[in-house]
Amino acid sequence: MSSFRNFKMIGYVVFGRGSFNQLNDILKPHRKDNRPMVFLVDNYFENGANGLVKRIPVQENDKVIFADVTYEPKTTYVDSIAQQLKDEYGTVSGVIGIGGGSTLDLAKAVSLMMTNPGSSADYQGWDLVQKAGVYKAGIPTLSGTGAEVSRTTVLTGPTRKLGMNSDFTPFDQIVLDPELIANAPVNQRFYTGMDCYIHCIESLQGTYLNEFSKSYGEKALELCRKVFLEKDTWDEESDDKLMMASYAGGMSIAYSQVGVAHAVSYGLSYLLGTKHGIGNCIVMNQLEEYYPEGVAEFKRMVEKSGAEIPTGICKGLTDEQFDTMINVSLGMKPLWENALGKNWEQVMTRQKLRDLYEKL
Amino acid sequence: MSSFRNFKMIGYVVFGRGSFNQLNDILKPHRKDNRPMVFLVDNYFENGANGLVKRIPVQENDKVIFADVTYEPKTTYVDSIAQQLKDEYGTVSGVIGIGGGSTLDLAKAVSLMMTNPGSSADYQGWDLVQKAGVYKAGIPTLSGTGAEVSRTTVLTGPTRKLGMNSDFTPFDQIVLDPELIANAPVNQRFYTGMDCYIHCIESLQGTYLNEFSKSYGEKALELCRKVFLEKDTWDEESDDKLMMASYAGGMSIAYSQVGVAHAVSYGLSYLLGTKHGIGNCIVMNQLEEYYPEGVAEFKRMVEKSGAEIPTGICKGLTDEQFDTMINVSLGMKPLWENALGKNWEQVMTRQKLRDLYEKL
Repeated sequence: MSSFRNFKMIGYVVFGRGSFNQLNDILKPHRKDNRPMVFLVDNYFENGANGLVKRIPVQENDKVIFADVTYEPKTTYVDSIAQQLKDEYGTVSGVIGIGGGSTLDLAKAVSLMMTNPGSSADYQGWDLVQKAGVYKAGIPTLSGTGAEVSRTTVLTGPTRKLGMNSDFTPFDQIVLDPELIANAPVNQRFYTGMDCYIHCIESLQGTYLNEFSKSYGEKALELCRKVFLEKDTWDEESDDKLMMASYAGGMSIAYSQVGVAHAVSYGLSYLLGTKHGIGNCIVMNQLEEYYPEGVAEFKRMVEKSGAEIPTGICKGLTDEQFDTMINVSLGMKPLWENALGKNWEQVMTRQKLRDLYEKL
Repeated sequence: MSSFRNFKMIGYVVFGRGSFNQLNDILKPHRKDNRPMVFLVDNYFENGANGLVKRIPVQENDKVIFADVTYEPKTTYVDSIAQQLKDEYGTVSGVIGIGGGSTLDLAKAVSLMMTNPGSSADYQGWDLVQKAGVYKAGIPTLSGTGAEVSRTTVLTGPTRKLGMNSDFTPFDQIVLDPELIANAPVNQRFYTGMDCYIHCIESLQGTYLNEFSKSYGEKALELCRKVFLEKDTWDEESDDKLMMASYAGGMSIAYSQVGVAHAVSYGLSYLLGTKHGIGNCIVMNQLEEYYPEGVAEFKRMVEKSGAEIPTGICKGLTDEQFDTMINVSLGMKPLWENALGKNWEQVMTRQKLRDLYEKL
């Protein structure tokens, strides 16, 4: 008997231009016994960017922590923030992530580690988390990753890059305010947006898929095309649509899987610390063989956006380093199977993957 | 400061052909202290239709109640089922609705009345429900109403037809198994499906709307067109897509509103007991003036489906009866404002509405 994933949804969603102003009202019922709300904020905003920090409804006991997202979140970083909060407060009312995918994932993980013992590395995998975390909310300031609706939180641990996948992981609340993504730097906006576009191409052309994920994936793809190809200027409508593209792309994950770009990009990320969005773009740029139409369209989007896609990033790596990337990448079995079918190992040999990495 | 609705999502969704087979596993963690699960099943299945009843995972203490959905649910019916369950069991583990929109709404309402005192009529309105109900799950066997994801449960009460709108109303779980809608009678399938189509036309052409609801509404509309116009035969893909159309149409309600067809159809329903799906079709058939393209497309769908749309249903009604319908309909202020703008009262006069009712 085949079995379908029973997909845990986020608790509440509010969508609207200016909906961030409702945050104080939204949090009020979740403030318990004078315990603090902890705002985990992308450190991009620390110097006052967009005037965002001043608008956070901080109450007397609350704490604002600027998250260092130079690298994607590590389990050690999650553990240290959770420990710091336990030392200082015992427990907290909630954790509110404000930022891009890394910050949102960090917030989810810290929330879970406020109630689950040990290290977040112990929970990297599927359904290992045993207890609900504290209340958690996600407020994207970049759109594309789908982290706002996913049931995972991708973390780099001592031995692997893998999420805390569980029914306890999705946010209790998300606030989708397109005004918050309005002033993102062009390159960053493009890299993060392409996470959504690439994911759609990979999942819609994959061998996994059903009508639920297809509906969401098609909508996300249509919205990406609208903002990155069809529209001539970036305006409010672009922010609205990109925010919904990310949401729909994230929902489509329920019954789909990513493919070659993500599998190869994980290797880069593990060895070189390449961030997810830019890493996917670097790889997608070289995947004509696997996604001919998708890659051609991607290149038109790159050109139109004016974003820069780095090249030559694997120059000078040693055989051992290539082997590390190849091992990490080939370990992503469901991604390869989704992309290339049951016999993927015969298609994607180590040599073929090495050749691909050398082109990046 | 404008304020956006903070939309409560359903708890879990499982989508897949045959996912109904997972129901026993899904319910297991929610069976508490040997209290029964109550399966509220559309009485269409009572005589063995589709072999559905035999497949319900009934355990020793459980109860199957066949819901009489000849008429849309009344508050008195909700109250009597809830009272019967309290008398027999004190409380129950959960209420599982299996059927079309009426059955799903009935299940939501009965769940809420297991824990909230008084009559369901006391809670017709917005955010009047004070307590979570017992665990509740919805399993559609007809697609189109969006009742599977909505935060309401439309009930006919002593003085009005109005839902129990609240954050406690959405299901904890929905099971979307397209196999369950496969053998619906052609007319019924069409009427229910058109609830989704008409809702999309009304909301996408309305004056309310934002990108969240637009994304869902556009997708639902596209799926309706696919199954009711573009495809030449009704097959598994049709069931898959119609089920997703209903889900997406329901989600689009978050920030949109219906319009003329629903407002007029409520009058029919109140006076004549006309069911929601067929009532919408009867009205839509005469709305060229308000939705010219939508009505033309609707008529092509009617023709292609072979469904029958009754006419002449208002023949012989008294002035008093017309006035009753007009009063009910004009009471739906947000629907009219969405359809016709702030000055809707100057557009839709009592005489104009009377003329419209006489055409039906």
